[in-house]
Amino acid sequence: MIIDLLADKIKKTGNPSVIGLDTAAEYLPDFDKIKGKKEDILPAVLDYNVAIIEKIKHIVPAVKVQIAYYEAMGVPGMALFAETVKFACKAGMIVIADAKRNDIGATATQYSNAFFGGGDFDSDFLTVNGYLGSDGIKPFLGNENKGIFALVKTSNPSGGELQDMKLENGFTVYEQMAKLVSDWGSTSIGKCGFSNVGAVVGATYPEQAKKLRELMPHTFFLIPGYGAQGGGADGAVAGFTADGKGGIVNSSRGILCAYKQDKYKGLKPADAAYAASVDMREDLVSAIKRK
Amino acid sequence: MIIDLLADKIKKTGNPSVIGLDTAAEYLPDFDKIKGKKEDILPAVLDYNVAIIEKIKHIVPAVKVQIAYYEAMGVPGMALFAETVKFACKAGMIVIADAKRNDIGATATQYSNAFFGGGDFDSDFLTVNGYLGSDGIKPFLGNENKGIFALVKTSNPSGGELQDMKLENGFTVYEQMAKLVSDWGSTSIGKCGFSNVGAVVGATYPEQAKKLRELMPHTFFLIPGYGAQGGGADGAVAGFTADGKGGIVNSSRGILCAYKQDKYKGLKPADAAYAASVDMREDLVSAIKRK
Repeated sequence: MIIDLLADKIKKTGNPSVIGLDTAAEYLPDFDKIKGKKEDILPAVLDYNVAIIEKIKHIVPAVKVQIAYYEAMGVPGMALFAETVKFACKAGMIVIADAKRNDIGATATQYSNAFFGGGDFDSDFLTVNGYLGSDGIKPFLGNENKGIFALVKTSNPSGGELQDMKLENGFTVYEQMAKLVSDWGSTSIGKCGFSNVGAVVGATYPEQAKKLRELMPHTFFLIPGYGAQGGGADGAVAGFTADGKGGIVNSSRGILCAYKQDKYKGLKPADAAYAASVDMREDLVSAIKRK
Repeated sequence: MIIDLLADKIKKTGNPSVIGLDTAAEYLPDFDKIKGKKEDILPAVLDYNVAIIEKIKHIVPAVKVQIAYYEAMGVPGMALFAETVKFACKAGMIVIADAKRNDIGATATQYSNAFFGGGDFDSDFLTVNGYLGSDGIKPFLGNENKGIFALVKTSNPSGGELQDMKLENGFTVYEQMAKLVSDWGSTSIGKCGFSNVGAVVGATYPEQAKKLRELMPHTFFLIPGYGAQGGGADGAVAGFTADGKGGIVNSSRGILCAYKQDKYKGLKPADAAYAASVDMREDLVSAIKRK
C-alpha cells in the first residue's frame, strides 16, 4: 500500500512534511542572470530541483510537484516535469503529482494512464477534484501502489464560496465531499490505519480540519497553506489525529525561496532549503506536541 | 470578444456543434496495424486529427481537444496536443482546450499562462472547475480574446452525487455554481449577448439545462454527452435560448469513429467523419426547430 510507504517514511524521517517543487523561474537564485532566456531557464529549474532533492531526500519524506508551473513552459516544461518526477522517485522520495485532475470516467481513465500507467509522468500520488462524483474517481483506484488526494477544503481565501455552503442535510458542501472521499477510500485502508484515498485540507482552516478529522478518521490529509499562504504550524496540524498522525504539510515557496530570507543569509540556496526544511520539521513536531 | 467570434462561426456554418478530438489510439482506422508500436501511434493520431480538421473546418465552427488523451502518451503526447491545437487554429477553427484545470490563484495564473499565454498549448477557450471559487478563476479572465467554460452540471451518471445536493438556500450545488459562473462572466458579455465565461452543461440532463438557462441567461453552454454518452438532440439543445442560441454541442466518438458505423460504410474515415458531422448538424438544427 502506497499510504503505508508514506507513513513509514514520515516515521523514519520524523517529519510530516512535503516540499512543493512549484519552481517558478523567478524563484531561481540565478533568475536575474537568465531572465528572458527561455533556453537557460528550463535547465536551471531542473538543476535547482535536483539540488534541493539531493539535499533534503534523507530528512523529508515526499515532494509535491505542481504541474501548472511546468505546463506554463509548454512541451519542454512537461519534459522538465517528467525529469523532476523521475529524479525524485530515483532519490527514494514519495512523489505527489499536484494536478487536480478531474473528468468523466472514460477521460479519467486516460488521466490515470498518464499518472499511474508507468509513463513519463508516473507518480505515487495524484491530486484530484471530485466535483464529478464516483465515476470520475474510480479509474484512479484499484492499484495499491498508487494513491490520490481529493480536494475537500482548499486553503485559498475564496475556497468557501462553494465549499462552505450549507446543505439541507446540515453538512457543508466540503463535508459532503469529505463523506464521498471517505467512501472512496474505504476499501484501501493500509496497516497504518489510513487509506490510499486522501484529502486536501488547507492549513488555513484549522477548525474545519478538526471537524474533518472526526468525519473521516481513516483519511490521510495533504495540507497546503503553511508558510507563504499564511497558515501556522498549529493550524497545519489541527487535522492530525490525537497521536500526531494522519497528515503531511506542504511548503513550497518557504523552502524554494528560503535563501532570500535574512534567517538563512550566507547559505547556498540548496543549503538554505535544507535549513528551512529542518526548521519546518521542528515547527511541526513542536505543534504536534502542543496538541 | 472570443465569444462573439464563436457565435459568428456558429451562424456562418449554421452549426452549433463542436467536434471532440479525444483521439484514443483505438479509435484510429489503422489501429490493428499499429497496435503496440508507440512510435507509429503518435504520428497516426496527428494524421487522423489533421485529416478530420481539413474535412470539417468549413462546416464545423470549433474543435474541443481533450488533453487527457494526449497526457496519457507522456511528453510526446503533449507535443501532439500542441500540434493538434496549432493546426486547428491555423485552419481557422475555434479551439477549446478541454483540461478542466483548477487551483488556487497563484497556480491558476500558471495554468492561464499555459493555455492563454501564447505558448505551445495556446487555445481560445479552456474548460475549468470552479470548486476553489473566485480566486482560482480570476487569473483566466481579463483577456477578451480568451474564454472559459466552467463545469456546472456534468454529463456523467455520478455527476449528481455532489452537484445535485440541495442547499439550505433552496438551490442545488450545481445551481449555486451556476450563479458563481454567471457572476464571473458579468463583465465580459459580448455583442452576441453571451459572456466569455461559459458553462459546461451535460446533454444528458435536459430538465436541469432548461432551468440553468433561466438562471444564467448570458452564459454560453458547452454541452457534452450527445451521442456516445446517450444524450439525444432534443436533450442537447434543451438549454438553448428560445431563439435557438447560446450553446454548442460536442461529439467526439460519434465523429472520430463514424467510419465504424454501418450508416457510413464504404466511406473513407475522414469522409465518414464529415458525413457524421453533417448529420449531427441536421439533427441539432431539427431539434432547435422543434423547441
